[in-house]
Amino acid sequence: MTAPFKFMKSGAGRGSRGGCMRLFQCGCMGCGMTGRYAMPADAGGGGRVPVSGGAVDRSVHEDLAAASRILADQGVVDAFGHVSMRHPTAPDRFLMPRAVAPALVTADDIMEFTLDSVACEDKGRSGFLERFIHGQIYAARPDVMGVVHSHSQSVIPFGLVDVPLRAMFHNAAFLAQGVPVFDISEKFGPTDMLVGNNEKGVELARVLADKPVVLMRAHGSVAVGPTLPLAVFRAVYTEVSAKLQVTATMLGGGSRIAALDRREGELADAVNVGAGSRAWQLWKHRVGAK
Amino acid sequence: MTAPFKFMKSGAGRGSRGGCMRLFQCGCMGCGMTGRYAMPADAGGGGRVPVSGGAVDRSVHEDLAAASRILADQGVVDAFGHVSMRHPTAPDRFLMPRAVAPALVTADDIMEFTLDSVACEDKGRSGFLERFIHGQIYAARPDVMGVVHSHSQSVIPFGLVDVPLRAMFHNAAFLAQGVPVFDISEKFGPTDMLVGNNEKGVELARVLADKPVVLMRAHGSVAVGPTLPLAVFRAVYTEVSAKLQVTATMLGGGSRIAALDRREGELADAVNVGAGSRAWQLWKHRVGAK
Amino acid sequence: MTAPFKFMKSGAGRGSRGGCMRLFQCGCMGCGMTGRYAMPADAGGGGRVPVSGGAVDRSVHEDLAAASRILADQGVVDAFGHVSMRHPTAPDRFLMPRAVAPALVTADDIMEFTLDSVACEDKGRSGFLERFIHGQIYAARPDVMGVVHSHSQSVIPFGLVDVPLRAMFHNAAFLAQGVPVFDISEKFGPTDMLVGNNEKGVELARVLADKPVVLMRAHGSVAVGPTLPLAVFRAVYTEVSAKLQVTATMLGGGSRIAALDRREGELADAVNVGAGSRAWQLWKHRVGAK
Amino acid sequence: MTAPFKFMKSGAGRGSRGGCMRLFQCGCMGCGMTGRYAMPADAGGGGRVPVSGGAVDRSVHEDLAAASRILADQGVVDAFGHVSMRHPTAPDRFLMPRAVAPALVTADDIMEFTLDSVACEDKGRSGFLERFIHGQIYAARPDVMGVVHSHSQSVIPFGLVDVPLRAMFHNAAFLAQGVPVFDISEKFGPTDMLVGNNEKGVELARVLADKPVVLMRAHGSVAVGPTLPLAVFRAVYTEVSAKLQVTATMLGGGSRIAALDRREGELADAVNVGAGSRAWQLWKHRVGAK
Repeated sequence: MTAPFKFMKSGAGRGSRGGCMRLFQCGCMGCGMTGRYAMPADAGGGGRVPVSGGAVDRSVHEDLAAASRILADQGVVDAFGHVSMRHPTAPDRFLMPRAVAPALVTADDIMEFTLDSVACEDKGRSGFLERFIHGQIYAARPDVMGVVHSHSQSVIPFGLVDVPLRAMFHNAAFLAQGVPVFDISEKFGPTDMLVGNNEKGVELARVLADKPVVLMRAHGSVAVGPTLPLAVFRAVYTEVSAKLQVTATMLGGGSRIAALDRREGELADAVNVGAGSRAWQLWKHRVGAK
Repeated sequence: MTAPFKFMKSGAGRGSRGGCMRLFQCGCMGCGMTGRYAMPADAGGGGRVPVSGGAVDRSVHEDLAAASRILADQGVVDAFGHVSMRHPTAPDRFLMPRAVAPALVTADDIMEFTLDSVACEDKGRSGFLERFIHGQIYAARPDVMGVVHSHSQSVIPFGLVDVPLRAMFHNAAFLAQGVPVFDISEKFGPTDMLVGNNEKGVELARVLADKPVVLMRAHGSVAVGPTLPLAVFRAVYTEVSAKLQVTATMLGGGSRIAALDRREGELADAVNVGAGSRAWQLWKHRVGAK
Repeated sequence: MTAPFKFMKSGAGRGSRGGCMRLFQCGCMGCGMTGRYAMPADAGGGGRVPVSGGAVDRSVHEDLAAASRILADQGVVDAFGHVSMRHPTAPDRFLMPRAVAPALVTADDIMEFTLDSVACEDKGRSGFLERFIHGQIYAARPDVMGVVHSHSQSVIPFGLVDVPLRAMFHNAAFLAQGVPVFDISEKFGPTDMLVGNNEKGVELARVLADKPVVLMRAHGSVAVGPTLPLAVFRAVYTEVSAKLQVTATMLGGGSRIAALDRREGELADAVNVGAGSRAWQLWKHRVGAK
Repeated sequence: MTAPFKFMKSGAGRGSRGGCMRLFQCGCMGCGMTGRYAMPADAGGGGRVPVSGGAVDRSVHEDLAAASRILADQGVVDAFGHVSMRHPTAPDRFLMPRAVAPALVTADDIMEFTLDSVACEDKGRSGFLERFIHGQIYAARPDVMGVVHSHSQSVIPFGLVDVPLRAMFHNAAFLAQGVPVFDISEKFGPTDMLVGNNEKGVELARVLADKPVVLMRAHGSVAVGPTLPLAVFRAVYTEVSAKLQVTATMLGGGSRIAALDRREGELADAVNVGAGSRAWQLWKHRVGAK
């Protein structure tokens, strides 16, 4: 499977990871809702701990740790929020830091999970309560390679009032595709607001649909991308654009805002894919990553 | 008294601190209003200086000093504001820094007070003018172990206009219980706005009632918690949520804000108790505390 | 003249500084308006350079330099703005840095001026174009010992629209006395907006009257105080209160703001005089001053 | 050509640079629109790489690199945006960093371009996609010696709503001349929003006309100046004034703003030319430049 990328839904995998696949089958029996497989690995057990999708280069872990610290440095996350990436060679696995403040993440904190958010090997580490956001988006969106969940301050208000988030400038062109809002209470009634199991993750991914960003009412947002750096880029510029839109709204007294239209958004976003690497280099430099 | 915590009102204490108790009885004779007991310790005197609730581990003083520096680092306090904790083994005592800018507090600055805010031993140090906020809340609220008083910039406006402060996202879920406003002029007429004696502290505690946060008109706010880290967490996220609410109000032009409702607030706040420790670790790291 | 402070108007001075007094008489002949005496000292000349009010301790220069750096550190000034203090023993002289960015001022940059803003000895250094703000306020207000001129960002808007700046909390209690607005065009027609001569300085001082703060339309503001630290304190908290008022206005949609009333302002400002020293210590610490 | 500056339109040059001139003639055949001359130098070729306008002192490159880092330090640019200066002795050439984040630019990153934005020698380095903004402004505006393109956060909203950007205080006096808005879609229909070729650069320069600043709808802005430091000064104070205007608008509820009128703007801007050097010294100090 080094050939052109072909996505496999969770539950269907490589023969060489049959044990894992069995687990996946078990995993479908409601486990996601309770997250009960996220327990420490039963070392002597037979098959309850999913096998890894394969070793990855340490530089991959370092890049993901840098992404976490970048999001803190750029003000997108504070003590909370998290970023993940799909496993570079096993599309039914993803990599994500253990539950620690984003600014403190190092390569040693990276864990591996199945798309049902069961840790392949936890070494006594705890995953984030909301890792299901990530797993279910990777399951539903084969094009997504990186996911950021954050509570950035200019974005949250757009999930609280009936004003669509739009693309205020070219760097946020991806928002011109439209930004849906996930209100967890619509399907689940009163909750702790968290996407704390697979059922909620599935619903969030359904609302996200094919878009790059989804808002979460009274909670935060999720940005996804075809690469890890682009997911980070989108999380950063979603916050920037939201701030611009708040200002434009106040300045204009609610009059028309000449945001990017859908076609402009498509054309401009193509450029961001290249420009994003310039930002990525700067941002890595700022957090002391190579 | 290592068994399950049992609160004692000031004036009723352990036999082993009888001297202190006598002082407390004296203390009830109007002393609180003038704060006249906060004088330097009369070393050779007989009973006017309350005895200590007992020695505490240095790490306790270091944690409280860290809390003070954290509040400065997080932008909740500037040159003013203060944080305290109840004495870990003597519920009728609390610990609080001497009157110094929060960013500069170290373990050596921690003083001990009775709930009437008389220093147990001041070693020539001066307590904050508004220590009565802390003492009277500990007196009225046995569940409270930490208190933060601040003038954070997004919170003050909610004490100035007739707009209730609400919970804009899960981390501020505790606000969904409702946030009362203390207007010192209602009971005391024109004043210097400060809670500078026990009588005003009693009234503030009465308005706070069983809530986690109280606003103070044209002054600031107080956040309390069942632990010191949670009091700090609430002070930080009260400011964050206030900022979100200002933005949502401007963005929505005053239309409905889909804040957490009361039930969502209860469910979400239960999670914060755990998540708070992740923030606490990050924040301590940032201010150079262990 | 070490006895209780007695103010002397410029032009009347101690006999021991007769040379200076003669200059002052010359200075009254319209010199202020053109500032033409601010030229480098004519070393061999006879009397055109005013004599000094007397040597001051280096710690005084260091305090004034610290005040300048504090204002930059606190975000009250950027590349522009300036702070001065009255000469500690000669009330008809004031001390002020040469024209350099506030963040870069050291004790060696401090110059001495007459109240007409003529340098007593310039050593080739240039004074600020707007030193006349300072000189004429010292001339008109014997109670003022420190003056800050700044363009801080939340304050300028109050000079641009018809909304009075008020005291949003106790630390800004001095604003409850009322804040006048100086519109330079009212008396002088179209100008470069600067208070660049004594005539404009006199008019600014007239509008300031007995207040602690005056706004300058499309320009900035001036804060004065009975000590240098209190002038700095007022400049800082004018900015803070202005920001609070903007937020309260947006939040309340223009409804009533429960600011400090005049009596509350008087009572609360008395406390600030003491509390200001706590801020001063913190702020000096932040800019590396002793 | 050391005598008083005389501007030459691109296509007409010094005899000593005939090879370059021939290229310029080629360059006029539509090349600008595709930018196809920005390819790596064809070392052995005959005339396709424009010759340099002449060696410049390293301090010139260092100043331009400092300008780039200053814009990042002052919050005018983030990962994107760029600054250029006209070649000090060859008016038909300009200097500009290679495509790298502004905060990271050093003297070694400076490239030289013709006014059609063809690199004189690229040494394998890539220029910015939008260098055509710079080249065509230098072509159209002989008075312009420095150009800044940025996406600063308070400025963008003025390109999105129908509210003219005005001069809120003396440091932004240059805005009183009026600030036009370039909407790329008016002439070019749906695009990627970028000024990525000479044709678009020509149109942007046409809309800028003789003004110091032009807004770009849903994109950013351009500030120009008679020197590099003044172009930077204008970029910084355009952002500051925009922020002030947003605040004044909110504060005044849309009522009249007493901004600088045109005559005040002219008078005040004359002072900025001198004051700008004080800012420039501070800003260089902050980014570690001499």
